[in-house]
Amino acid sequence: MNQRPIGVFDSGLGGLTAVRQLRRLMPSENIIYFGDTSRVPYGNRSRETILKYARQDTRFLRSFDLKAIVIACGTVSSNCLTELRAENDIPIIEVVGPAAQRAAAVTKNHRIGVVATRATISSGAFANALGASLDLMVFSCPCPLFVPLVEEGRCRPGDPVIELVAEEYLRPLRDNNVDTLVLGCTHYPLLADVIGQIMGPDVALIDSGAEAAGALQTLLSEQDALAEREKGSASFYTSDRAADFQRLAALFLGKDLPVQAKQIDITAY
Amino acid sequence: MNQRPIGVFDSGLGGLTAVRQLRRLMPSENIIYFGDTSRVPYGNRSRETILKYARQDTRFLRSFDLKAIVIACGTVSSNCLTELRAENDIPIIEVVGPAAQRAAAVTKNHRIGVVATRATISSGAFANALGASLDLMVFSCPCPLFVPLVEEGRCRPGDPVIELVAEEYLRPLRDNNVDTLVLGCTHYPLLADVIGQIMGPDVALIDSGAEAAGALQTLLSEQDALAEREKGSASFYTSDRAADFQRLAALFLGKDLPVQAKQIDITAY
Repeated sequence: MNQRPIGVFDSGLGGLTAVRQLRRLMPSENIIYFGDTSRVPYGNRSRETILKYARQDTRFLRSFDLKAIVIACGTVSSNCLTELRAENDIPIIEVVGPAAQRAAAVTKNHRIGVVATRATISSGAFANALGASLDLMVFSCPCPLFVPLVEEGRCRPGDPVIELVAEEYLRPLRDNNVDTLVLGCTHYPLLADVIGQIMGPDVALIDSGAEAAGALQTLLSEQDALAEREKGSASFYTSDRAADFQRLAALFLGKDLPVQAKQIDITAY
Repeated sequence: MNQRPIGVFDSGLGGLTAVRQLRRLMPSENIIYFGDTSRVPYGNRSRETILKYARQDTRFLRSFDLKAIVIACGTVSSNCLTELRAENDIPIIEVVGPAAQRAAAVTKNHRIGVVATRATISSGAFANALGASLDLMVFSCPCPLFVPLVEEGRCRPGDPVIELVAEEYLRPLRDNNVDTLVLGCTHYPLLADVIGQIMGPDVALIDSGAEAAGALQTLLSEQDALAEREKGSASFYTSDRAADFQRLAALFLGKDLPVQAKQIDITAY
């Protein structure tokens, strides 16, 4: 048993989709979330800048006494994992490996699609993780407009803009007959209905945040480090105005934040 | 005569459209440009965060011995002008006032539209500047997807996504019979063709960066502070990778950067 909290961070609000899965799987855990809303999005920035930001995010979370960190951001997971693991002495779970494993287990025709930010696709992290496990065909597509659209709340079927953009990005993957599609960015589960409509019911969608939550549960269980209490708590920190975070968080979490978010100065870390 | 350089800054690359106008009007001037590409976009952030960033941008530019600063960013111009002018002892030209003056001078039916980022529209700066000068009807529309689309290079007629988004944003302005439309963000001149197609040939488009360049020329001329040399130089600084800035800059400047951009750490200012 380990009662210490789990730290979770993302460039912004997308990681809250992973928090939702963590709370569903492990309702006894305490969670501390940081969303870097004053510098979102990360997905078009250079690797060097993403690493600088990710180190500050991690240092802020380490100001709490954590038992593990979840990188709930595809861009950071695919660009900074080596450094963050080397620099931290607690387990770090990320969203690329578990999703790649699940995709490799699920595919029947060995044709897997990956959608993610430009920085994630450029890193080759998903292709590497998938290539390592099996003889798979991987079709990757950077989707740079998905994050801005989701952050505008334009993520539901019937919105002509998201439908047009998604059709453009996904057509080549559909034409290549992938039977499994990795949603390699924690913003994308909010697009699951739109994406599902375009890819059709026979394509399995892999939620990378949910897979990371599952991987953390397995790890904590193996290490006998799960928390034991009736109901875990959650705290939310953000680098821009707390009220703005609070307002948008409901979209990602599926319900209103249970507590007030707090603003911190991330450049101090 | 004053040979000192002019400092110009923007959240990212949009301000280069203003640099283009400055160089066209005043080819003898030396220009120092800073684009905050590690923190772009500003337009959806809180006023407090925008002010913090704008102060750092200004402090970096003041590390050079300038004769004037151009805020080539609608979001900063509309949210931070009072503070930046109070804190700096050199002239600061911004993109709201000159564009509002031009719009008021150009309109015949006294119906003016304004498109800009959410933070600019929320500030009410354009509505105030226009309301102060005449009895005008002002129709404002935040266009939060324009900056991400332009930064993706999706700004030309024939691109179905920008055409769909622009039609959605501009329809209410067209239905309200505005005869003048202020492009209240320095990214938007790149959308002039798309916007012109939707608004029709009878609607005058006001380029806020070009108007700011004109206002600076008037000011320097009145103060006898124009530079006198055959050909001015330009230097470009950015807070993310110089190579990425270099690659995208051509789109905004209309030609390749004449010199290598340099990366600086903006959080040190």
